Amino acid sequence: MKKSHHKEFVVLGAGLSGTLMAIRLAQRGYDVELFEKREDLRHANIDAGRSINLALSDRGLKALRMVGLEDEAKELVIPMYGRMIHPLNGNPQLYRYSGRSHEWINSISRPGLNSILLDKAEKYSNLKLRFSCPAEKVDTAAQMITFEEGSIVSHLDVSKKMVIGADGASSALRKSYQERSIEIRFDFSQTFLDTGYKELCLPAGEDASFQIEKNALHIWPRNGFMMIALPNLDGSFTVTLFMPFEGKVGFNSLTDNHSIEKFFHSNFPDVIHFFPDLIEQFQKNPASSLGTIRCYPWLLEDRYLLLGDASHAIVPFYGQGMNCAFEDCVVLDQCIELDHAHWHDIFNNYQIQRKVDTDAIASLAEDNFYEMRDATADPVFNKKRQIELKLEKEYPEYFSKYSLVTFQEDLPYSQAMKKGRAQDKLLMDIALNVKDVETVNLKEVLNMLKHL
Amino acid sequence: MKKSHHKEFVVLGAGLSGTLMAIRLAQRGYDVELFEKREDLRHANIDAGRSINLALSDRGLKALRMVGLEDEAKELVIPMYGRMIHPLNGNPQLYRYSGRSHEWINSISRPGLNSILLDKAEKYSNLKLRFSCPAEKVDTAAQMITFEEGSIVSHLDVSKKMVIGADGASSALRKSYQERSIEIRFDFSQTFLDTGYKELCLPAGEDASFQIEKNALHIWPRNGFMMIALPNLDGSFTVTLFMPFEGKVGFNSLTDNHSIEKFFHSNFPDVIHFFPDLIEQFQKNPASSLGTIRCYPWLLEDRYLLLGDASHAIVPFYGQGMNCAFEDCVVLDQCIELDHAHWHDIFNNYQIQRKVDTDAIASLAEDNFYEMRDATADPVFNKKRQIELKLEKEYPEYFSKYSLVTFQEDLPYSQAMKKGRAQDKLLMDIALNVKDVETVNLKEVLNMLKHL
Repeated sequence: MKKSHHKEFVVLGAGLSGTLMAIRLAQRGYDVELFEKREDLRHANIDAGRSINLALSDRGLKALRMVGLEDEAKELVIPMYGRMIHPLNGNPQLYRYSGRSHEWINSISRPGLNSILLDKAEKYSNLKLRFSCPAEKVDTAAQMITFEEGSIVSHLDVSKKMVIGADGASSALRKSYQERSIEIRFDFSQTFLDTGYKELCLPAGEDASFQIEKNALHIWPRNGFMMIALPNLDGSFTVTLFMPFEGKVGFNSLTDNHSIEKFFHSNFPDVIHFFPDLIEQFQKNPASSLGTIRCYPWLLEDRYLLLGDASHAIVPFYGQGMNCAFEDCVVLDQCIELDHAHWHDIFNNYQIQRKVDTDAIASLAEDNFYEMRDATADPVFNKKRQIELKLEKEYPEYFSKYSLVTFQEDLPYSQAMKKGRAQDKLLMDIALNVKDVETVNLKEVLNMLKHL
Repeated sequence: MKKSHHKEFVVLGAGLSGTLMAIRLAQRGYDVELFEKREDLRHANIDAGRSINLALSDRGLKALRMVGLEDEAKELVIPMYGRMIHPLNGNPQLYRYSGRSHEWINSISRPGLNSILLDKAEKYSNLKLRFSCPAEKVDTAAQMITFEEGSIVSHLDVSKKMVIGADGASSALRKSYQERSIEIRFDFSQTFLDTGYKELCLPAGEDASFQIEKNALHIWPRNGFMMIALPNLDGSFTVTLFMPFEGKVGFNSLTDNHSIEKFFHSNFPDVIHFFPDLIEQFQKNPASSLGTIRCYPWLLEDRYLLLGDASHAIVPFYGQGMNCAFEDCVVLDQCIELDHAHWHDIFNNYQIQRKVDTDAIASLAEDNFYEMRDATADPVFNKKRQIELKLEKEYPEYFSKYSLVTFQEDLPYSQAMKKGRAQDKLLMDIALNVKDVETVNLKEVLNMLKHL
């Protein structure tokens, strides 16, 4: 492995992308200090009912493979083969994610995955982990980071270091860019959905059994709002209710126990009996907002670089937030591999190449909110999905938009978006005009798709 | 005039829109305190060579009429009948802004206009002016504004007041929204052009004579950069060079005297001799950035409202920044007139109605940068403008996009944009296919335009 001119790295944030990038830099032989504002989550007391899970798919697995953690991660996952759609009336139905039998996504616990990354990071003598070190202020002009934990204040001179901000959507490094926005012409946008989310825990049944189908991502589409559920290894499901804040059906209206109970009975009658403490959970857990952050440049003064959510926080509806942040590390590593001397060029090539793709996944994720919430309950849309799955099964060279994004780990998001949207348009037209999907001439459709 | 339930108003910013809005509220009988961070500009020492001017047009005049200042303002203006285009080779040519002889825009000094507003404001006993009072912090949650001037710190309890932030692009009120962005789901974006600007003064000739045509907005389009000039009452012109920061022709490359001189000689040979101190000015004056700010909501907690640039800073290329901010005051006043009791509804109706229009003028202003910089040197574009002017002359019911935006004071910006863009597309197609504009059948074109 080539190594650039010796450099010391400071990585802010020992979450998923920060730890993975720190490992990779250590593997390349650089000295790395990895600062995390929270305590070490491997020793922290995590509320069992709040074990957040994520959907790990091919792009994320590729990044884990890069640092040698793919197999370990796979031991923590629960495969989800498709979307289990729960209509208000009638039986749930599974729509597979792909017509190819080897393609699915994986439910994984965020702290579980973060732990194996930290375990790995600890093995490198040139990688120092610093927990409980919140970067209170990054002063990019003075090249100084101030850490403050309780009464202990320390200053880190970074004038001879490279600083990677992988410190999430509320990044301290990005804040320092924002403070200098006019001077450095820092484009920034943060937008929120009218919809927020509340997490609930659907507990395991007897003997840690799964009370609903284990190997699926469950969706209860309800036109204007929806609930989803992802399985955990202990038999429980992390359930998320997505709903507007305002309006008649909104978090701000659902405040008293009676209306909460009525709401669940009316809308989710098939699962309400699995939650003995539903109302208590609903009252206790917060309703949080969903936002998208776009900004540019990520590189400042040849020394500072934003990575992962710090540079592009997205809404969770494509299950790509973590996968995209992991892919950042792969792309940055490729840029290091190609040019192993000029850090300005490495970082600049990275940001130029990566910006268009992270913009694409941000748009796709916003679109997918409406698809999951509303379209999955639409007969025409479901016909279209059936045609697509038949296509993928019969002609494995065909990839739906979902498959391009999720299972084509080497295809940039921007290309997946462009191709996928064109395919969707054509297939929705076909689905609109067909009564029985069995009568569709797949070969003909494939030809039309090839000529897009 | 109807008066809402009695309310006390705090207006932040005694610039153009803040002072105009404060006057209007005082005219409606409300008690108003108007806070300005700077000293009173009527008594301040303003550098004569830096008298910034603006283009005042119909929307702005309408607002001045509302408060009874139209005639006074008109005494300060210099009419600009059109764009005087200075090609690199050949004689300058005037392209009128409208085919109707009574439509033009007006160059006016910003401090001059601000002064007549302040003079007017002082006449109302229910309007208190507070200069040298920078709002160091607006704490919307605690309902407290902290003013700090030197060592004097004072706190203003606004829990029983209405607060209007007309404090410009770097608004202290908006900052407080941004600090609470996740809690209040405050959408915010700030984007910068790669191009910046530098102001220069083209001095008056002998006996305060104008050294270039007085009654025009001068443009030197140079494909990739441009210079413009607006006349001042004293015979000078405020000249602005718009140019990228980076690149071969960029502010960051033009640093030594020799290259500056060479640059002006090569690109602006017809005016360079009017600037005896050109290099000195160029070296002294800063290159500033050009940004657009969009945000929403403007209303917070029924009490706080962003107005003018604080809510929608735009780039200057449509000459609408001030006119738009003044129109904000007109629209807000209309909302007060319609509903004179419920301030939440007044402010909310205002923001819902106004957001779409300020977004439109922000987009139009960005577009116009490229039109001024590049298209005004394009023969097809100039043919199109000639066809349009003939149309406006022959058929006064026809309004070009520019005229819709600039001279149709009652047409919302969003409608002007939609209609104007459709017209432009059609007329550019016609101009592309016509050799001599004299051969164009205007009646036929008018019919096509009517059917858009």
